[in-house]
Amino acid sequence: MGYGEESLKMHEKWHGKIETKVRVPIESRQDLSLAYTPGVAQPCLEIHDDVEKSFELTRRWNTVAVITDGTAVLGLGDIGPEAGMPVMEGKAALFKEFGDVDAFPICIKSKDTEDIIRTIELISGSFGGINLEDISAPRCFEVETRLKKDLDIPVFHDDQHGTAIVTAAALKNALKLAGKKAEDIKVVINGAGAAGIAIAKFLLAYGVKDIIMCASHGILCEGDPKLNAAKQEIVKITNLSHLKGTLADAMKGADVFVGVSVANCVTKDMVRSMAEKPILFTCANPIPEILPDDAKEAGAFLVGTGSSIYPNQINNVLVFPGLFRGALDARANTVNIEMMIAAADAIADCVPADKLALDYILPVAWNKDAHKAVAKAVYEAAEKTGVSKLK
Amino acid sequence: MGYGEESLKMHEKWHGKIETKVRVPIESRQDLSLAYTPGVAQPCLEIHDDVEKSFELTRRWNTVAVITDGTAVLGLGDIGPEAGMPVMEGKAALFKEFGDVDAFPICIKSKDTEDIIRTIELISGSFGGINLEDISAPRCFEVETRLKKDLDIPVFHDDQHGTAIVTAAALKNALKLAGKKAEDIKVVINGAGAAGIAIAKFLLAYGVKDIIMCASHGILCEGDPKLNAAKQEIVKITNLSHLKGTLADAMKGADVFVGVSVANCVTKDMVRSMAEKPILFTCANPIPEILPDDAKEAGAFLVGTGSSIYPNQINNVLVFPGLFRGALDARANTVNIEMMIAAADAIADCVPADKLALDYILPVAWNKDAHKAVAKAVYEAAEKTGVSKLK
Repeated sequence: MGYGEESLKMHEKWHGKIETKVRVPIESRQDLSLAYTPGVAQPCLEIHDDVEKSFELTRRWNTVAVITDGTAVLGLGDIGPEAGMPVMEGKAALFKEFGDVDAFPICIKSKDTEDIIRTIELISGSFGGINLEDISAPRCFEVETRLKKDLDIPVFHDDQHGTAIVTAAALKNALKLAGKKAEDIKVVINGAGAAGIAIAKFLLAYGVKDIIMCASHGILCEGDPKLNAAKQEIVKITNLSHLKGTLADAMKGADVFVGVSVANCVTKDMVRSMAEKPILFTCANPIPEILPDDAKEAGAFLVGTGSSIYPNQINNVLVFPGLFRGALDARANTVNIEMMIAAADAIADCVPADKLALDYILPVAWNKDAHKAVAKAVYEAAEKTGVSKLK
Repeated sequence: MGYGEESLKMHEKWHGKIETKVRVPIESRQDLSLAYTPGVAQPCLEIHDDVEKSFELTRRWNTVAVITDGTAVLGLGDIGPEAGMPVMEGKAALFKEFGDVDAFPICIKSKDTEDIIRTIELISGSFGGINLEDISAPRCFEVETRLKKDLDIPVFHDDQHGTAIVTAAALKNALKLAGKKAEDIKVVINGAGAAGIAIAKFLLAYGVKDIIMCASHGILCEGDPKLNAAKQEIVKITNLSHLKGTLADAMKGADVFVGVSVANCVTKDMVRSMAEKPILFTCANPIPEILPDDAKEAGAFLVGTGSSIYPNQINNVLVFPGLFRGALDARANTVNIEMMIAAADAIADCVPADKLALDYILPVAWNKDAHKAVAKAVYEAAEKTGVSKLK
C-alpha cells in the first residue's frame, strides 16, 4: 500500500503526534502564586472536601487515558506495550482533533489481567474516562467488565464497542437501501474475537434477531465444550437453530455478512449462496475477506470494508471522539447501551436520505459535524438514562 | 496572603492548567493513513524490533509523568490523591513553560509502597522520565530507590532533590558573600523528613563537612533506637561529634541554619547564638521558622525563605524543568549525583558576580535563561558520566 514507509518517515520527523499545551499565564511571581504555590493549596483543599470538585478545578473533566497492553495491536498481534504506542498516540491525536478531548496514551507492561485492572484502577483518579485499546480477547472482556463495575467514570473498549457501533450504523443505512428490516434479516459474523462478539451483542440490542457466529473452525454452536467463556455466552443468544458446519454453510441464505477475520476467507460461491441483495462488510485489514470487486461480480448488493482505499469504510474513528465528548460533557458515570445505540443512530443519520447510496452509507471520519452529532446524541442519552452526574 | 481565594476562582475559570495539542495534520484520508491506520503499523513494528525506537517514533523522548499519592501535598499533608492534582497539574504547566517538557500529572489511589512502585513500573514504558512528587517520608525513599534501580529512565523525587539542589545553589552564593568556605562551616538542618535528609546528603556531596540534623524532638544522634531507617542512615554521616540536645543547642556556633520544618520554631536568641555572619534559609511554608525581619534584627547576615513574598526565594521550580530537559536531551538512563551538582552550580552561576547581593542570591523562577543553563549543565554532566544513551 506504500503508507508504511512514508508513515515511518513522518513519525521520525514528527517526533511525537501530541504534546502538552499550557492554558494559564506563567510569566511573573503573581502568576506562579496563583497557578502553583501558595495559591494552589485552596483548590487542593476544595477537592479534599469533595472529590467531585476534581472535575471542576483540574483538567480531569476533559481527560481520557488511552490504554493498551500491546497484545492485539492493529492486525499485528502481540507486539509489546511500547510498540503499541504509535497507535495510542495517534488515537490521542484523533481524540483531540475530532472530539476536543485531551487524551493521554499509556501502555502497561504486563499481560496479567489483574495487573492491568489494578493499574488502571490506581491511576483512574487522574482521568475523566478510560479508553481501552488493543488488548487481546478474552482478557479484554474481564478487564472491561471489572473496570466498569469498579469505576464511576466512563470505561470503553474501543475494539469491541467502537467497532460494533459503527458496524450497526453502516448496517442501518445499508438496510434502508436494500429495503430490509433488522428484525427480518439473517446476519453471519465471521471472527469470534473481541470485535465479533461485541458486534453480535450490539446488533441484537439494535434490533437484529438472527445471528450466526463463525470462527476459524466453523459455526459456533451451543454445547461445544471447546468454546471459551465469552463464546459460551454468545452461543446462548446466537445461532438459535443450532446450525453446525462451515462458514459456507452459515452463509447460505444470509442477508448480511460481517467479517472481522482474515483475508480471502470468503469465496464468490459463498456470496452467490446468500439471500437476495446481499450486504457484505468485509473488515479484515489490510486485505478484506473478499475483494469488493469480486464480491460485486458474485452479486453483492453493497460492500463495506475496514480500509480507506475502498468506498464505505467502516471506521471506528467515527465513534470514540464524539462518544467520549458526549459522555464527558454529561459527566456520565458509565457508557451504557442506550448511549451506544444513540451514537450508532447519530452516525447513520449523518448521511442525508437524498445522498444515501451504495457507495455512501457512512460519513467520512474527518467530518467534524458527524463527531458533533455523536457527542450530542450520547450526551442526551446519558441525561435521559440517569447516568449524568451534572446537577 | 489572599492568594487562596483568587487562585480558587482562577482554577474554576481555567478548568485545567494544561491540555493536549495535536502536532500532525489530520484533515484528510491521506493524513489519517499516515498518522493512524494503516501506515502506523510500520513505526509499531520498528519499536517491536527495538524498544529504544520508542524514543524516536513517539513523544516518549519528551514526556515525563508527574506522580503523587497525595500523602504530603505542599504543607497540607495527606489530603488524598485527587486533591493533590492541582499541584501536579501546575507542575506539568511549569515543566512545559520552563523546560519545554511534556509532563502529564498522575495520582495513584494507594498509599502502599509496593502498589506505588508496581504501578509506576507498569506504566513506565509510556514515559521518558518519572518525577515523583508529594509522597510522604519514609515511603518516598523506598519508592525512589527501587524505581531508580528497576527503570532505565530518569527518576527524580523533587521534594527531596529539587529542594536539595536549589538549597545548595543558594548556599554557594551566600557563602561567597559571607566569605566562608563550604568545608569550614557548620550547618544545622531542622526537619528530618524527605527534604531535610536529602539536603543533608546533597550538601555533604557538595563540600560541606559538618552537619547537624534536628527533628521535633531535638538533635538526631547515632544510637537512638527510636530513629527510622532513613534517619539511622543519616546519623552515620552527620553529627559526627555525637552532640545531643535541642535545636537551640545545635544552633550554637552554627554558620548556617536550613529549616524545612514548621513556623516560628527559631527564636531571636537562637540566631544570636550562631557564628559570625549567620545565614538562615527558613523554608517552612507559608510561614517561615523565623520571620526575616526578626532574624535580621537578631544579627542574621543573610536570609532566604520558601516564600515568594520575601527576597531570596529558595524555589525548586528553578530545578526540575531544566534538570529533566537536560536529562531527556541526553537520553540519560538515570539522574546521578554529578548531574544534580551540575544543576546546583548552574543555578548559582546564573547570578552574575557583580549583581550578587544579600537580597539577590538566586535567579527568579521565571528566568528562562536559568532553566536553559541548568539543562545544558545537566546534559553535559550526563554525557561526561556515561549515562547518556545517545550514540
